[in-house]
Amino acid sequence: MGKEASRKLEWRINVSDGVSERLEPETGAILRAWTWFKRLMLGGFILKICKFLEKAWNLAVDEPKKVIHGLKVGLAISLVSLFYYMRPLYDGVGGNAMWAVMTVVVVFESSVGATLGKCINRAIGTFLAGSLGVGVHWIAFHSGKNLEPIVLGISLFLLASAATFSRFMPTIKARFDYGIMIFILTFSLVSVSGYRVDRLLELAQQRLSTIAIGASICIIISMLFCPMWAGDELHLLICQNLEKLAHSLDECVVEYFRHNKTSTAKDEACSKKMKGYRCALNSKATEELKANFARWEPAHGRFSFRHPWKQYLKIGASIRNCAYCIETLHGCVDSETQAPPHLKRHLNNICMRLSSSSSNVLQELAFALKTMKQSSKINLSVGEMNFAVQELKHALISLPNHNISIKNPSPSTVEASGNCNTEPITSIRASSSFMEILPLATLASLLIENAAKIEVIVNGVNELAVLAEFKPTTDNKKSKSNQSPKKLTSENQDPETVKIPQKV
Amino acid sequence: MGKEASRKLEWRINVSDGVSERLEPETGAILRAWTWFKRLMLGGFILKICKFLEKAWNLAVDEPKKVIHGLKVGLAISLVSLFYYMRPLYDGVGGNAMWAVMTVVVVFESSVGATLGKCINRAIGTFLAGSLGVGVHWIAFHSGKNLEPIVLGISLFLLASAATFSRFMPTIKARFDYGIMIFILTFSLVSVSGYRVDRLLELAQQRLSTIAIGASICIIISMLFCPMWAGDELHLLICQNLEKLAHSLDECVVEYFRHNKTSTAKDEACSKKMKGYRCALNSKATEELKANFARWEPAHGRFSFRHPWKQYLKIGASIRNCAYCIETLHGCVDSETQAPPHLKRHLNNICMRLSSSSSNVLQELAFALKTMKQSSKINLSVGEMNFAVQELKHALISLPNHNISIKNPSPSTVEASGNCNTEPITSIRASSSFMEILPLATLASLLIENAAKIEVIVNGVNELAVLAEFKPTTDNKKSKSNQSPKKLTSENQDPETVKIPQKV
Repeated sequence: MGKEASRKLEWRINVSDGVSERLEPETGAILRAWTWFKRLMLGGFILKICKFLEKAWNLAVDEPKKVIHGLKVGLAISLVSLFYYMRPLYDGVGGNAMWAVMTVVVVFESSVGATLGKCINRAIGTFLAGSLGVGVHWIAFHSGKNLEPIVLGISLFLLASAATFSRFMPTIKARFDYGIMIFILTFSLVSVSGYRVDRLLELAQQRLSTIAIGASICIIISMLFCPMWAGDELHLLICQNLEKLAHSLDECVVEYFRHNKTSTAKDEACSKKMKGYRCALNSKATEELKANFARWEPAHGRFSFRHPWKQYLKIGASIRNCAYCIETLHGCVDSETQAPPHLKRHLNNICMRLSSSSSNVLQELAFALKTMKQSSKINLSVGEMNFAVQELKHALISLPNHNISIKNPSPSTVEASGNCNTEPITSIRASSSFMEILPLATLASLLIENAAKIEVIVNGVNELAVLAEFKPTTDNKKSKSNQSPKKLTSENQDPETVKIPQKV
Repeated sequence: MGKEASRKLEWRINVSDGVSERLEPETGAILRAWTWFKRLMLGGFILKICKFLEKAWNLAVDEPKKVIHGLKVGLAISLVSLFYYMRPLYDGVGGNAMWAVMTVVVVFESSVGATLGKCINRAIGTFLAGSLGVGVHWIAFHSGKNLEPIVLGISLFLLASAATFSRFMPTIKARFDYGIMIFILTFSLVSVSGYRVDRLLELAQQRLSTIAIGASICIIISMLFCPMWAGDELHLLICQNLEKLAHSLDECVVEYFRHNKTSTAKDEACSKKMKGYRCALNSKATEELKANFARWEPAHGRFSFRHPWKQYLKIGASIRNCAYCIETLHGCVDSETQAPPHLKRHLNNICMRLSSSSSNVLQELAFALKTMKQSSKINLSVGEMNFAVQELKHALISLPNHNISIKNPSPSTVEASGNCNTEPITSIRASSSFMEILPLATLASLLIENAAKIEVIVNGVNELAVLAEFKPTTDNKKSKSNQSPKKLTSENQDPETVKIPQKV
């Protein structure tokens, strides 16, 4: 369009005045620049939109739940707008149907708990503020024409200030933040509109009924169509964090000992798994939010109404504690100062055994949580982990003695010592300094520290099992397989063979 | 009341029928139980309220800002309600003044950035949805009487679904979440009410003007009366976290080495300081929120409009990384397995020197941030810290050599070695096992690790200093004191002096 118009313009100039200098080259350049600029802008804009749509598409594919939530909100709003479209309904609730639409838009959240919480908050807030507003109005009305606005103004100021301040109280903020906001809103509207509209009670009744309509549509839709329970999400989050910790721990230690052999063989998937613990590091806010929502939810699936959601926060905190330790462990893997390979080889197997038994405990816990059954193997797994801790400690104790006693080992013994690490380390060169051992010793002591932190998680999950009355495992096979390895240990005297098949 | 009624009832029974058995003892007991129950309930209720008020009072004393915010909201709502109370104003904006009240209640947040962001979101969301709503309405109107509700319904469903889904996109969620909600709300209201009310444009104009009134009152009050800038808060939070880390680090190491001497001398204030780093552990969500709000804020105080707030998030992340390390360090202090006192004594001073030079760097950084000036001493402090790292490493290297060479030191040397720890450790008993050294070695290696992490923070602050154009310190005294220690180090032939001065 712009191109054509400017061509026309040029053409006109040339026709109207034959001798006028030809403007073409200059305007042509400007024109071209402008077109180029437009295309660039448009191209940039289209590119941005394309990128945005691509991101949205990826999100939708990754988490179809979010698309479903969008559709549910659309459905709820369409339903509530029926109150306007249909004449009989419209006559019933009057022009206040707006409040129903507003309720749906504002109250509908992605999880059932959040929606329920907001609905209850909105209802209670509206009701309390409405009654209080009518009461204050009555007092103001009876205190004379002159005092009326003053009484109303002061009460509004005081109540709004106090209520706003109360939103900062942690206990209020966690559960009733929205209710307080609605309280302030309703009280202001009532005390303000009451000055004009004399049909206060009628108004209040209408508002409450429209809110009830909006809220019930929200609750019904959010609970009937693909309900997303905040409790389920919290439960899953904790399970996933446990599993991620387990994988990270395993990968970290494997990576540490692989490091010097093939330092470039660090593939993408492995590195992603290794960093899984980072999800646990920053999940505190999410956990608290979900636990708060979950408390509003009725009994659903395997969860009763008074499911001990707070215990999940406790478990979450101990998981984070463990994740901090793995973060430091991760630092050891990435560190520039590494123990020399021959030293690493000595503690390789025993460290791997401790890390795998630790991650085994974590996975057992995740499985127990997932199935909500008391794990029959957890005690055994913990025992194994503690045994590995003792072994590692022994290996460490025997380390310096030999360091002292053997001053000049032949180089061949260094090579030959290989992988048998339960035997005391006899082949360390006397020249290997403390600084060379230090990184390895730090890793070992972090692994030992980590095992202690895992036991705290075990206690947390056990408490949850008691509080939430997890069922005991009744599987006979499992209890059998539970016994046989115990026997094995005593016969073989090798802890490695005891390794119980993981149930995850 | 209940007491009187039940007495009356009893009296009546006795009078109406002379031979009826006397009910007094039983009802008396019930009555007493009821009264007791009521008192207990009332007492419990009053106790709860008292506790709540006490908590509120403490919060108000601790953070008077929050009280001020409450008063500001009260003031804003009172001001906006004037539009109702005063007839001329009322006639001006019509019955839609409700929207102004609603805007104030919903939009007024504690920080200027959050309030501004919400106002802008509300304005843009309302405007876009209003225009789109009118457009869709026009199309629906021209598509015939029968199709009209269908076109409106489908467009409402699709737009509401898509907009709700877009709220899950991280980029949208961070900045435009509220705007999208207002978009959905306005679009629903327009497309729904338009079916009834034919004065759509007038309605839209009224709504926009009332929203503008409410929003401008909010903005004026939040910016003029004790403004609370999200940017200021973020800046302060980062500074405080740096200081808390510094104190925690110091206290942790002091506590570690005091432990065995007077294990009960752990006072409250000390333990509180030691746990200060925990604030940094969980501040990610707060930092991100504040950074998002800060981006809406205009230039204020020392911050320009385009202040690099994102860089604060980067610094925050590296502070957290450091805090993870201190968390593990804290674990060493609380650990049951401790190195024996005589071993601790050997590394006491050098560890303390490293920790105090590390915390010195942190405090320098906090000071540089606070004053927004390039610290002239930071390079020196970092150099000192790295020197202490080298010293600690040397001390560790010399440890096992002496462990080997000196097999039977006289007990007197153990006692005599005391506090001079730059000299090689000559007095360790040959019998002290590796397990005894391990906890101490872990502590040392964590301290070394921590120093590396602190350098990452230093780099982050340096980047900020460049981005935000921190002024160089012009203080003469400081530059003098800057030179003298440098001289000292160069005389000592310390590798650290070669360290190129970083430009903070």
